[in-house]
Formats: sequence, C-alpha cells, structure tokens
Amino acid sequence: MHGLHLIAELHDCSGDPRLLASAAALRELCTNLCRAFGLTPVGELFHQFDHGAVAGGVTGVVVLAESHLAVHTWPELKAVTLDLYVCNFSQDNSAAARRAGQQLIAAFAPARTVQREIERGTPDRLPPALVVPGSD
Amino acid sequence: MHGLHLIAELHDCSGDPRLLASAAALRELCTNLCRAFGLTPVGELFHQFDHGAVAGGVTGVVVLAESHLAVHTWPELKAVTLDLYVCNFSQDNSAAARRAGQQLIAAFAPARTVQREIERGTPDRLPPALVVPGSD
Repeated sequence: MHGLHLIAELHDCSGDPRLLASAAALRELCTNLCRAFGLTPVGELFHQFDHGAVAGGVTGVVVLAESHLAVHTWPELKAVTLDLYVCNFSQDNSAAARRAGQQLIAAFAPARTVQREIERGTPDRLPPALVVPGSD
Repeated sequence: MHGLHLIAELHDCSGDPRLLASAAALRELCTNLCRAFGLTPVGELFHQFDHGAVAGGVTGVVVLAESHLAVHTWPELKAVTLDLYVCNFSQDNSAAARRAGQQLIAAFAPARTVQREIERGTPDRLPPALVVPGSD
C-alpha cells in the first residue's frame, strides 16, 4: 500500500474544451495516457453530468492495477481536479505517475495549477529491524 | 471545485474480512454509507483482484455527484486505503464527509490509522474583493 498520490487543481484551462465537457473525450485521454506510461487500467467509469442548457462536467475514474486515476471537470469554471494514486507494491511506479500526471495536466493547458504530492502508507517490505511499532 | 479530501491508511484491520476480500461486500458497505450520510452515488465500479491461492484485494470507486470515494484493500496485509473527496459547490458537504469517513474507517476496525484532510481548490464564489490573482 506504500505509494505516491499526486493531487492537482487546474484553473483557467484553455485546452480542447471537449476534454472538460465530453465523457468520451476524457475517457480516451485518460486511458490512453495511463497505458502510454505503463500503468494498467482494469476498469473505468466516466459519468457525464447534465446541467441542461449549460455544458455539464464529467467525473472519470480509471481503476488501475496500481491504484486509480480520478478526474473531475467543471466546464463552466474551466477547472479540473486530478488525482493519480499509484502503489509501489511490486515496483516503484512513482516516476511513471509523475510523467503521466504532467502530460495529463498539459492536455488541459491550465493558466494556474496547484499541485501536491502525498506519500501514502509505510513501506511494506522494510527490513524487520527498521519497523518500529506505532512509529508513524 | 472547492472541497474537502479525506485521505486515510488503515493498518491491521480486524473488521469483517469480507470487506477486504469481497467486491460485493465492499460495494454494499460503501454505497450504503454514502447514501446514509446524504451523499449521492451516480455510478460505482468495484474490481476484484485475483491472486490465485491468496485472497486478492478489491479496488472500489463510488462516483458521487459531490465527487468520489475510492477504496483499495490488501487482505494479505489487513490494510486499506481510503479517499473521500467532496466538493462544496452548492452546499458544504464537509461535515457529512467526515462522518461518513469515520464510519467507514470504523467498519474496518484498524489498529492503527493515518488520516489527513486536504482542502482542495479555492472557494469558487468568494466576493470579488477577496480574489487576488495568483494568490495560492
């Protein structure tokens, strides 16, 4: 369960507007990008919100063997939030996640981005001498 | 897009073992809990991993009108990670998310939990005088 969670909020996005308003376009971007960087989609769900006359946003999730990618879009705000969480159980996927995250952000072309990296879990396979009960 | 993201890692879980190993049991828990706390599922995807003789884990995602819940389980480690992200676009869902998160954690009965709260996005409807370009 040890892994890296990338979190980003994208503001004033000027990329292809279909990426914010079309579940199909966002699905294609997200699943292709995951595969291109060696991540392994095992399922995906993209939900199109309908706001009537106003273009509704999309919530998309790609379930990965490595954990998940979640994207929420607000076309009316030209805003997007991203989460990309990869576990490092059998190998370190951090570099692949960072590259995929950067390319995903670039696709939306935000004028302003707030990004954070969160280390999750404790390393699962530390040598026993390094494991101190209740240490985090 | 302003909202609250609750992140937790649960260690040494001693709750019902089906919650860690059964996609159906985890789905029922997650969707019922979201509804019980006034959150609105609009889709869900629960993937059962198959590790052969070893009980495989589950990745479950509930897409919410308010954003998403994501759960990953590792039965072999008795470990779980949780993400519950709620946006506060039309109302403040923070209190509901905190209560749902606490009840979800309690269901797994972890001996040790690492929890974080992350505030996401900037408030979308601040009075103009409070909005400073490039301020976060």
